[in-house]
Amino acid sequence: MVLVGTRNPLNIGAAARAMSNFGVLNLRVVNPYEVAFREARSAVGAARLLENAGEYATVAEAVADCDLVVGTTAVGHRELQHPLRRLEYGARLIRGRMAASKVALLFGSEKFGLSNEELSHCDWLVRIPTREEHISMNLGQAVAVCLYEIVRDSKAALREPTRIATAAAADIERFTEMLLDVLRESGYIKARTAASTEQKVRRLVRRLNLPARDAEVWLGILRQMLWKVSK
Amino acid sequence: MVLVGTRNPLNIGAAARAMSNFGVLNLRVVNPYEVAFREARSAVGAARLLENAGEYATVAEAVADCDLVVGTTAVGHRELQHPLRRLEYGARLIRGRMAASKVALLFGSEKFGLSNEELSHCDWLVRIPTREEHISMNLGQAVAVCLYEIVRDSKAALREPTRIATAAAADIERFTEMLLDVLRESGYIKARTAASTEQKVRRLVRRLNLPARDAEVWLGILRQMLWKVSK
Repeated sequence: MVLVGTRNPLNIGAAARAMSNFGVLNLRVVNPYEVAFREARSAVGAARLLENAGEYATVAEAVADCDLVVGTTAVGHRELQHPLRRLEYGARLIRGRMAASKVALLFGSEKFGLSNEELSHCDWLVRIPTREEHISMNLGQAVAVCLYEIVRDSKAALREPTRIATAAAADIERFTEMLLDVLRESGYIKARTAASTEQKVRRLVRRLNLPARDAEVWLGILRQMLWKVSK
Repeated sequence: MVLVGTRNPLNIGAAARAMSNFGVLNLRVVNPYEVAFREARSAVGAARLLENAGEYATVAEAVADCDLVVGTTAVGHRELQHPLRRLEYGARLIRGRMAASKVALLFGSEKFGLSNEELSHCDWLVRIPTREEHISMNLGQAVAVCLYEIVRDSKAALREPTRIATAAAADIERFTEMLLDVLRESGYIKARTAASTEQKVRRLVRRLNLPARDAEVWLGILRQMLWKVSK
């Protein structure tokens, strides 16, 4: 990751922290405000990463050993001369290239983004799909969003990873029976409509999606109620 | 979005800015440090959103009208009693529910996250897939990443939205012919191996993937070279 002309030490620190969160550990800074870079070195949990950060005078030097150079932009007033990709797609391309080659992701200064000269070193650009009425993101947040999209696991979106085991039919039936006992004792079930009410309750309970691990607790609750109402 | 017990005005401002970037405009704050909330009201581009933010004394009051309440966690030391979903999957569920009902997304304080009491108001939890060695994210960045994942367009990841038109075969052939002229004039092509060199150059040019809009510029460059080398 390459930060170009960053002004605010809080932003350098925030960028470093997000890098550490998402496991992107190689930071390069181009021409930062000297003070900003020095002050940033105290960033939460990312001190090591900042210590190892390389400092360069120009974008050309910072990306010299990289095979793919991607710039970030909010697409403001400038006419872009580059292919521009939405982050969702661009990150996929970046991920594909990262396995075999070195990829540089460039972020410009807080105020102006990447200049045309800086952009001319990029192969293409990505933009974060923000709302048109407010496209300009905070630098640290833009870094976090880009790195998240690069490391996110698209397969994880498709499945329920922590499937909650629902109670077995036998447990649900025990629960239902005990609930019906309580309802009979409480006078909720009238003799005339008992059969249909019982069926209604049975369906109600099935719709609860009772988790397996909670079944015992619920049985205990009902047992206590039953004891109380039948006294 | 609900911020619970936030301490730092910069974080409230950053959260509001990310909300505005991603078009999530309803902010509620629970028991913030009074000063923090007042100072945050100057956040870049999100002043209106902060002015309209509701202030609540408890989580219960803040989420009273919501149909789904999702908490965020870095899953630290606490034993979680809730279903925990990765953001990729959780955001999909949230998106699905947002169309028809009100969803609350809760963020805890910078230092401690959501307390067990606060978590007990949640239906389930999401976590951002950070690296195990550094799971704790900056609050403003965590908000930005969660909202990005909720609004991101998964279909956009699958296609190239800004397909770059490559030059037509005729233009590529003109380019190739002119390049060959330049190479002949420069002495790069030797008579003995002319045929194989020309084929090699033809393949080289095809691999360039010359964009249609750049073809004319390249022809101009080659024309100038040809003029110079044949003088």
